[in-house]
Amino acid sequence: MSPPEPLLYEKVARLVEEQIASGALRGSERIPSVRAMSRMARVSVSTVVQAYMRLESAGVIEARPQSGFYVKISSAARLPQPKRHVLRSTRPRSVASEVLDTCLEAMMREDVLPLNGAFASPTLYPTRRLNYLTREVLRDHPLHAGELLRPPGDADLRREIAKRMALAGSPTDPQEVVVTSGAMDAITLTLRVLCQPGDTVLVESPTYFGILQTVEYSGLKVVEVPNQPGEGIDVDAVRQAVGATKLAAAILMPNFNNPVGSITSDERKRELVQVLTGAGIAIIEDDVHGDLHYDTQRPLSLRSFDEAGLVVTCGSVSKTIALGYRIGWAVSSQFHGEIARAKSFSSTACPTLQQKVLARYYATGGYDRFLRGLRQTIACNVQRMMEAIARYFPPGTRVARPAGGLVLWVELPSSVDSVELFRAALAKRIGISPGAVFSATANYRNYIRLNCGLTWTAKMEKAVERLGKMIAAPG
Amino acid sequence: MSPPEPLLYEKVARLVEEQIASGALRGSERIPSVRAMSRMARVSVSTVVQAYMRLESAGVIEARPQSGFYVKISSAARLPQPKRHVLRSTRPRSVASEVLDTCLEAMMREDVLPLNGAFASPTLYPTRRLNYLTREVLRDHPLHAGELLRPPGDADLRREIAKRMALAGSPTDPQEVVVTSGAMDAITLTLRVLCQPGDTVLVESPTYFGILQTVEYSGLKVVEVPNQPGEGIDVDAVRQAVGATKLAAAILMPNFNNPVGSITSDERKRELVQVLTGAGIAIIEDDVHGDLHYDTQRPLSLRSFDEAGLVVTCGSVSKTIALGYRIGWAVSSQFHGEIARAKSFSSTACPTLQQKVLARYYATGGYDRFLRGLRQTIACNVQRMMEAIARYFPPGTRVARPAGGLVLWVELPSSVDSVELFRAALAKRIGISPGAVFSATANYRNYIRLNCGLTWTAKMEKAVERLGKMIAAPG
Repeated sequence: MSPPEPLLYEKVARLVEEQIASGALRGSERIPSVRAMSRMARVSVSTVVQAYMRLESAGVIEARPQSGFYVKISSAARLPQPKRHVLRSTRPRSVASEVLDTCLEAMMREDVLPLNGAFASPTLYPTRRLNYLTREVLRDHPLHAGELLRPPGDADLRREIAKRMALAGSPTDPQEVVVTSGAMDAITLTLRVLCQPGDTVLVESPTYFGILQTVEYSGLKVVEVPNQPGEGIDVDAVRQAVGATKLAAAILMPNFNNPVGSITSDERKRELVQVLTGAGIAIIEDDVHGDLHYDTQRPLSLRSFDEAGLVVTCGSVSKTIALGYRIGWAVSSQFHGEIARAKSFSSTACPTLQQKVLARYYATGGYDRFLRGLRQTIACNVQRMMEAIARYFPPGTRVARPAGGLVLWVELPSSVDSVELFRAALAKRIGISPGAVFSATANYRNYIRLNCGLTWTAKMEKAVERLGKMIAAPG
Repeated sequence: MSPPEPLLYEKVARLVEEQIASGALRGSERIPSVRAMSRMARVSVSTVVQAYMRLESAGVIEARPQSGFYVKISSAARLPQPKRHVLRSTRPRSVASEVLDTCLEAMMREDVLPLNGAFASPTLYPTRRLNYLTREVLRDHPLHAGELLRPPGDADLRREIAKRMALAGSPTDPQEVVVTSGAMDAITLTLRVLCQPGDTVLVESPTYFGILQTVEYSGLKVVEVPNQPGEGIDVDAVRQAVGATKLAAAILMPNFNNPVGSITSDERKRELVQVLTGAGIAIIEDDVHGDLHYDTQRPLSLRSFDEAGLVVTCGSVSKTIALGYRIGWAVSSQFHGEIARAKSFSSTACPTLQQKVLARYYATGGYDRFLRGLRQTIACNVQRMMEAIARYFPPGTRVARPAGGLVLWVELPSSVDSVELFRAALAKRIGISPGAVFSATANYRNYIRLNCGLTWTAKMEKAVERLGKMIAAPG
């Protein structure tokens, strides 16, 4: 039993959405007539009408009388990007965590609209197929509950992960792959292998607060370098930091920094790897969003530029296939043995069932096709979120254009205190992530991060409208 | 669909085995005649004959012509217990790990008879029922793969774990329970909450090498106190250690120390908790074997004697229900919030599916009945292993009488180097654990630990015979 094919009209709608997302169709441009599309897509006229009606009701296109269907003028296009971050200080400092705690608590509330997360709606994951494969594994490995798959983990799954690494430009021996309990486990274990308590690691600013948490948890200090909207990691700042401070490691997210969504170009990636590994500094690459590129091409892993064997690439299935499985990996030619030992010492192993299910999922194909649809949906959600922000947020609002990933990084007018906004929104059962949690040194006082992984609904639109009002008239 | 009832003759066989294990039937004693048993157990004569034939072929009973069936004379009863451990030094020292690494590698080999492990054969776990419940959860929570159960974890599972704590004498609020990736994860996280790198923790000698590994991994030093065969934790030694060294925590296994199998009496438990918590020292109780008591009574948790809220009880399903699920817990009235945060920081969460399956498993009953059978099997395996050791190992061999758990702690003649024996046995594809890995300061040079969780077979008997020959004539 394979997952059901999308309905014909959904295929047509997706085709149009894809062209808009890729820029092939731009704002205000006329889309193919019903008849032309019917010929192009080899479907009936009524199917195209159904597709266009769906797109119209979703606000993606509009019908103009006697003229046809047009891409709606994108008000989002008028939103400027956030200003370049200027970091006041790059001196090592340890991480404060009061606001973080409140944010974590908010994430546990089930009565809150989770614009504070960075994940897709459960309905967007390939759960039907995963459940089917789970039943298969239960049948083929009835004793799995009694079987331990010690680190580095299931050989079949490691082979599949190695294959996917090749698509990111980094051909990998399955022996170099260690299965972990998600990417955060991979990063935590790798930090334990590379660093001693009290050491300093380089991170981006802004960066995912989970990285700052595990750095703090591991007893380490941070130096921050800017990740600029639309540009990515600031290589000059990295060069300066390497010269100024003794660094035990760097944790970088070149592919769709969370929260900025930026991609760091291949030239910059090459330079980053040279600067850091040239100084003998290992790089932990957080590549959890690498498969969620809005462009057609899967971006390269930093590891593809690494000749010293000092890049450890960490990934997971959490953002793409199965948030609830808690499976990720660390890939390293030099440290895989030590990372596997660290996994063994700290939590023995990963569950047998999920490893076997995921190995089958990748091996039986369809992941890339599934990804195309997921990326499409997320890119559309991003577009809708940007439209809604343009509509409801006050002038002076800026939004970083993400090149991939699940979130939007929004700069609010400078008068706004986003921690206060976070608390006010939470009282209205709307979750947002305040800028303060994305850096240990910068404040990002008037920034927020919004989740675009959720299926777009009227409730979402309403929430953004409400946020806009709170921002315009706080208190 | 519930698991199939054991066949009638298996029930009868188990009845006899239970009486032998409990000591109600002793070596050389006559067991009830076929006719008497048929009346007692309300089964047919032929069923009893079938049961007795199985017991005879398993070497549990013997037929004596014209006289009936007798419990085979237990040669195991002639084996003395190991000598009391005398620790040369209790000064803090960090943990060496060369031998440990080799042992871990051996555990990954699939071509080795795993007498080096401490787990039951996969066929002994309730896998059929667990798989049935897994299918139920797949049906009732089809979106589980997209759902994250953030720490402290699934509320239903935490409620069930809290209920089980009451059976260990420690009524618990479900809020005090944090679900972890097995007991080692629980211990590692709790150490992170209680200690700073460089701190000293108190452990038993001998103790489970996994504890020594995570202590080393956490950058901590150890002070060791003896756990004596047949007696348990040496309270005087604990008192002395508390007076002599600044301790950040103690990790204790009063219920069936691994590898000794000893139980620490309730009076000693009370005293231990008073001595340690009276000095403000928190206790991490490793209670993974607590449900595997050979006696009828579930032993008490240290937490039941704790008035200061300083005992953190760690457990898991690995030794009883599902080694491959990687689910455990930490229970603490004072530190549960911090442990949940540490879990969140280091590896985000535990998998959703296993938490829901286990919550159902406990809630739907049958665990205690299952446990009775499992304990019975393990106690019989222990008996058979002791018989085999008495038969094949050279004079001077001593064996600790376990009161519960899965392993046997064997003292070999003093001339034997068990690390050499470990390597020689491994070359013959027999896994054993050498004494050296069970302490950071004592050597236990002539000790080995043997797994009794595996279904007893002719191959096992053969392996023990082979080991005996290697011990008698090394090289």
